Amino acid sequence: MDAFSLGLWLDLLGTFVFGLSGAMLAVRRSLDVFGVVVLAGTAALFGGVIRDLLLGATPPSALQDTRYLAAALGAALCGFFGHGVVARLSKPVMVLDALGLGLFAVSGCRKALLFGLDPAPAILLGIVTAVGGGALRDLLVAEVPRVLREEIYALAALLGAAVVVLGDLLNLQEEWTILVGVTVAAVFRIISVWRGWHAPRSPGT
Amino acid sequence: MDAFSLGLWLDLLGTFVFGLSGAMLAVRRSLDVFGVVVLAGTAALFGGVIRDLLLGATPPSALQDTRYLAAALGAALCGFFGHGVVARLSKPVMVLDALGLGLFAVSGCRKALLFGLDPAPAILLGIVTAVGGGALRDLLVAEVPRVLREEIYALAALLGAAVVVLGDLLNLQEEWTILVGVTVAAVFRIISVWRGWHAPRSPGT
Amino acid sequence: MDAFSLGLWLDLLGTFVFGLSGAMLAVRRSLDVFGVVVLAGTAALFGGVIRDLLLGATPPSALQDTRYLAAALGAALCGFFGHGVVARLSKPVMVLDALGLGLFAVSGCRKALLFGLDPAPAILLGIVTAVGGGALRDLLVAEVPRVLREEIYALAALLGAAVVVLGDLLNLQEEWTILVGVTVAAVFRIISVWRGWHAPRSPGT
Repeated sequence: MDAFSLGLWLDLLGTFVFGLSGAMLAVRRSLDVFGVVVLAGTAALFGGVIRDLLLGATPPSALQDTRYLAAALGAALCGFFGHGVVARLSKPVMVLDALGLGLFAVSGCRKALLFGLDPAPAILLGIVTAVGGGALRDLLVAEVPRVLREEIYALAALLGAAVVVLGDLLNLQEEWTILVGVTVAAVFRIISVWRGWHAPRSPGT
Repeated sequence: MDAFSLGLWLDLLGTFVFGLSGAMLAVRRSLDVFGVVVLAGTAALFGGVIRDLLLGATPPSALQDTRYLAAALGAALCGFFGHGVVARLSKPVMVLDALGLGLFAVSGCRKALLFGLDPAPAILLGIVTAVGGGALRDLLVAEVPRVLREEIYALAALLGAAVVVLGDLLNLQEEWTILVGVTVAAVFRIISVWRGWHAPRSPGT
Repeated sequence: MDAFSLGLWLDLLGTFVFGLSGAMLAVRRSLDVFGVVVLAGTAALFGGVIRDLLLGATPPSALQDTRYLAAALGAALCGFFGHGVVARLSKPVMVLDALGLGLFAVSGCRKALLFGLDPAPAILLGIVTAVGGGALRDLLVAEVPRVLREEIYALAALLGAAVVVLGDLLNLQEEWTILVGVTVAAVFRIISVWRGWHAPRSPGT
């Protein structure tokens, strides 16, 4: 398996896992089957769609390669029919979610560099790709997005994207940069959940 | 009247009716006249704007043809000054809303096929065109969007879009495909409201 | 300083002030430092990003010129560390916010005309540029956006944008049009806050 198709499969896995997070939220909120599909699709695809819109890469890859839709739909069905099973798997799901976060941060940042953005905007686009789907997922059920409320979610994405920018500046081999970036983001995220890290609040409140 | 201008007029009618739904919601929430215009404009235009953004067809047709803005503004004024009358017309408004749903699903899907999308993404884009405006309308007043909460709204859009894809695959005459697609979506929607159909919820809850 | 760089510096000032409004809201809601950065960035940059997306001017200028990101980040840090000081400065902040509103309305409308939009859509785009960032800022913390709830916010943006369109139709010198447009919008906004103006509500409620 070459680096490109490895990237694609990891991307589809990230899509599936993010979709699962949307489907689980929809089931917990007693939405019907269409609500589950909408929320799964939003969480799975919206980050990449924003990335592509901002880069002017239209139509977005989520609409050009049907496998993205298939991954999102599969996640919706798993969440709908297997809610009980998935809920018991919360730890593995959290690990996969961390992996998805890292992967989307890395893929968003790489695509931004490819389109000629500077390092800082490229890192920002990596973060937006990684957190966008989850943010809209939460907004759709009228919740303040998790990325704003708790935990060092955006920082994990930032670290993963920063590794990509660093690797690009140093001309490192891309496969390694991807691997390190995804790993750094995912591991940081897992440790932050495990240890209950919180980001500081303003001294003014 | 040829097929193109028929399509345009139906599109403007759909814009007006969706705008009316936004204006009525704004008045019920006691928003001022600008809030009414914003909510009417959102409901009327946002679905088509997302469609055009995703296809890279910028600026969106809602910004290129001033008649779309005029239809949305007219709907806002009708809702603002004629709230009592429109509220008594809830059945005709529901029928027009179902027509708008069908028309936007069909127009979104047609444009997606024209831009070379595959069938599944084209159907998705039809659904997004049809439900996007209403979803943002609800989000703006901090409600969980109706498309997530109740009724078989997205399914009606899916059926209308699927007819377009089928007609395209079978090379049917486009006027008939449009007519059948809009009718199927609108009739399905009306029957689902009338009979109180609900989509199933997850067995896991 | 020529007209272009004056425009850029005013634009960056507007970005900073809008970012400050997002940061202050985030601190009041006890968000952590990342939430403060996200909300500041949203309020500062989102209006211009929508403008550029709708015009097809991708990547948006907020991602092409790193100074926009720097202005937003600076505003986030000021809000995070200096919340108490900024809160005591509410009057100067309100004046700066009104200036930002006028400037974004004018810059959005100018760019729309440059891209060949008609007057009415160009004015709409000016309004969207001016109010978009604040609207998403409020939505992210699950509030009904201020632009819908109260005060003659959108009207001030409309007036500023209308001056630009008028100046364009009459072929007036652009520096003057910008100056008058920004001033009209900002002064109207300040007076409306000072005098407690409210837009009328529907007679139907």
